[in-house]
Amino acid sequence: MPRRATIGVRVGDVTIGGGAPVSVQSMTTADTRDAAATAEQVNQLAAAGCEIVRLAVPDQEAAEALPEILAATSVPLVADIHFDYRLALMALEAGIHKLRINPGNIGSEARVAELARAANDRGVPIRVGVNAGSLPRRLVEAYGRTPRAMAEAALWHVGLLEKAGFESIVVSMKASDVPRTVEAYRVLAQRVHYPLHVGITEAGPPPGGLVKSAVGIGILLSEGIGDTIRVSLTGDPIAEVQAGREILSAVGLRSFGPTLVACPTCARSRADIEAIAEEVRAKIQHLDVPLVVAVMGCEVNGPGEAADADVGLACGRGCGLVFRRGQIVKRVDSAHMVDALMEAVYQEAAAKRVQPGSKEL
Amino acid sequence: MPRRATIGVRVGDVTIGGGAPVSVQSMTTADTRDAAATAEQVNQLAAAGCEIVRLAVPDQEAAEALPEILAATSVPLVADIHFDYRLALMALEAGIHKLRINPGNIGSEARVAELARAANDRGVPIRVGVNAGSLPRRLVEAYGRTPRAMAEAALWHVGLLEKAGFESIVVSMKASDVPRTVEAYRVLAQRVHYPLHVGITEAGPPPGGLVKSAVGIGILLSEGIGDTIRVSLTGDPIAEVQAGREILSAVGLRSFGPTLVACPTCARSRADIEAIAEEVRAKIQHLDVPLVVAVMGCEVNGPGEAADADVGLACGRGCGLVFRRGQIVKRVDSAHMVDALMEAVYQEAAAKRVQPGSKEL
Repeated sequence: MPRRATIGVRVGDVTIGGGAPVSVQSMTTADTRDAAATAEQVNQLAAAGCEIVRLAVPDQEAAEALPEILAATSVPLVADIHFDYRLALMALEAGIHKLRINPGNIGSEARVAELARAANDRGVPIRVGVNAGSLPRRLVEAYGRTPRAMAEAALWHVGLLEKAGFESIVVSMKASDVPRTVEAYRVLAQRVHYPLHVGITEAGPPPGGLVKSAVGIGILLSEGIGDTIRVSLTGDPIAEVQAGREILSAVGLRSFGPTLVACPTCARSRADIEAIAEEVRAKIQHLDVPLVVAVMGCEVNGPGEAADADVGLACGRGCGLVFRRGQIVKRVDSAHMVDALMEAVYQEAAAKRVQPGSKEL
Repeated sequence: MPRRATIGVRVGDVTIGGGAPVSVQSMTTADTRDAAATAEQVNQLAAAGCEIVRLAVPDQEAAEALPEILAATSVPLVADIHFDYRLALMALEAGIHKLRINPGNIGSEARVAELARAANDRGVPIRVGVNAGSLPRRLVEAYGRTPRAMAEAALWHVGLLEKAGFESIVVSMKASDVPRTVEAYRVLAQRVHYPLHVGITEAGPPPGGLVKSAVGIGILLSEGIGDTIRVSLTGDPIAEVQAGREILSAVGLRSFGPTLVACPTCARSRADIEAIAEEVRAKIQHLDVPLVVAVMGCEVNGPGEAADADVGLACGRGCGLVFRRGQIVKRVDSAHMVDALMEAVYQEAAAKRVQPGSKEL
C-alpha cells in the first residue's frame, strides 16, 4: 500500500509528511511549570526513542518555563495550548518547534492572523487537534459525534489558518474508539494534503489501551494514512514510545535497533553514569534488535526505572544490580557491572531474535 | 467494510464463517496426555471467553486422553495433529469437534480419502494451517517464503481435501511478521470461499507480541477478512483470550460484558467455590464492561490465577483475599468475601468505564 502523498512540515530537525519516516511522539506527564522535572522527562522520552515530545502549556507560568526546558533538551518540542493564544505567542518566542492549538477556539480572526504570522516568521508548524469529545456544537447538532463531524471540525480549523495564509499544518482527529477514529481519518485524507498525526485518544491502560491503539493506528498505516503517531496510554509515557515503535515495526514502516535509557540528570553519581552509559551505548549499537537497555544511577530509583526496560543496570555505591524484564538477575561489584549488564543484554537480544516460547502455528 | 462472504462450518455448537460472529480461539499449554490438567485448562480458557480450544495431539497417549478431556469439558475442541493421520482418526472417534491437520503432510491420497470420509461421517471440519516457517520445498524454491508461497501451500492442501470430496474447511496462513501474514490472507481471500482463521504466529511475549497480533489481526478484520482469530502470545493463554476479545471489541465486531474465571476442578473447596462463583456470576452479569473476575479456591494457587484477572477472590479457610489488578486489596472473613469482591468489581468497572488517567488528545 503506497503512503498517501502529503506536504512535509519541519518540526525542529524532524520532518512530518512529505515522504519522511513516520515519527513517534509522546507527551510529558510532569508539570510543565517544573522546568527541571519536565526537561528530565523529555530527555528520558527522547532516549527511549521519542522523536517529538509534547508538553501541556496551560498557563503563563508553564509558558515561562519553556526557555529553560528548551535549553536543557534537544528533541523537538510541541506546546499544547487550548484557548489562550498569548501562550502560543510566548511559546513561539521561547523557540518552541511546533504548536498544537485549534484556531477556532482562540476568539477572533485577528488573533488567528497574528498567531499565523508569528508562527510563519519562525517556521513553526501548527497541529489542529480535533477530539470527538469536544466538537463545536453546531457540528454535533448537524452530524452527531460522527467521523463526518470530526472531519468537518478539522476542516473548519484548517480553513481559518489557510485564510490567514498559513499552510504549515498537521491535523489529528481522535475518538476513544477505533471505528470512528479510522473513518474520520479516511474522510479527511480525501480532502486535505496536510500530513496527519494519528492515534486513539483515551485508549486506557494496557493491555486494552495498547490493543486499541495498535489496531487503530495499524489499520490507518496499512491504508497509507498517518505521518506521525502518538499512542495514548494510561501510565508512564515511555511505554507509549515503545508501543509506537512496535506498531511502526509491526507494519514494516520502520525498524529500530536497541535503545539506551539512562537517567540524564541525577546529581548523585552523574559522571559515572554518563561514562557507563557511553560505554554501554557503544557496546549495544551494533545489535539489530529493538532492545531497551536502561542504565540508572542509583539503587533507589533504578529498579523502578529499569522495570520498564528489557535489561537494566542500577548502579549503587561500589556495586550494581542487573535487571532483566524487571527482575533482578545479578548483583555485582562496580568493576564487573558493565560486563554483567552486557551478558544480560546478549541473552535478551538472543531471546528476542528467536522469540522464545513461541508456539507452533 | 462488509465482511467477506464465506461458507459456514460447524465446530460443535460454534459456527465459523457464513456470517457468524468472529470467534476467539486459544490453545492449551498443558500436556494433553495429562487429561485432568488439560481439561482444567480448557475450562479456564472457556470461562475466560475462549470459544474454541485447541489441543496438541502429538502421540497416541495424547489421543487416548481425548475422551476423558471431552467428557470433562463443554467448549468445542480442536485436535492439532502434524503428520500421523491415525491420531486424527482416533480424535474423530473420541468425538473431537475439529481437526487441524495438513493433508499434504500425511503421506498419500488414500490416507487423505480415509480421513476425509471419517471427518465427513462425523460432521467434523478440518483446518488447513500453513506456517511460513514450514512450507513445501518446491514452493520455497519457486517463490521464496513469500505470501504467494503461503497461499499456494494452502491451496495445495485444500485441493487435496476437495479432491477427496471434503469441503468443510477452514484455512490459516501465519508468518511471524505482519506484512507477509496480511498479504497471504489477502491473496487467499480472493481465491477461496472457505472461512479463514487469522493470527500472527510466534508473535512473542507482550507487549511486542500483543502489538503485532493486534496490528495484523486488526488490519485483516478491517478489510473484512477473518472468521475466527487466535492471538499467539508467549505465556498464559488466558491472556490470548483477553487480547482476542479486545481486538474484536476494538474493531467494533463484537462486544463483551464481564467474564467470570473460576477454578472448576479443585477438590479442596469445590462446593463452596461453585456456590460463590454462581453468586458472583449473578451479580456481575448486568455489568456492561469487559471485566475479568476470578473466583479461586485456595490461597495457594489463587493469587497467581487472580493476577491475570481484573478483580479476583482467593478463598482460604474461613477467610479470603480480594485482588485488584493483581494486588491484594483486602483480607476479609468468609462471610464478607463476596461483598468485598463486589466492591472491588464496582470500583474496577467504574475505572474501566471512565478510563481514568487518560490524557487529553
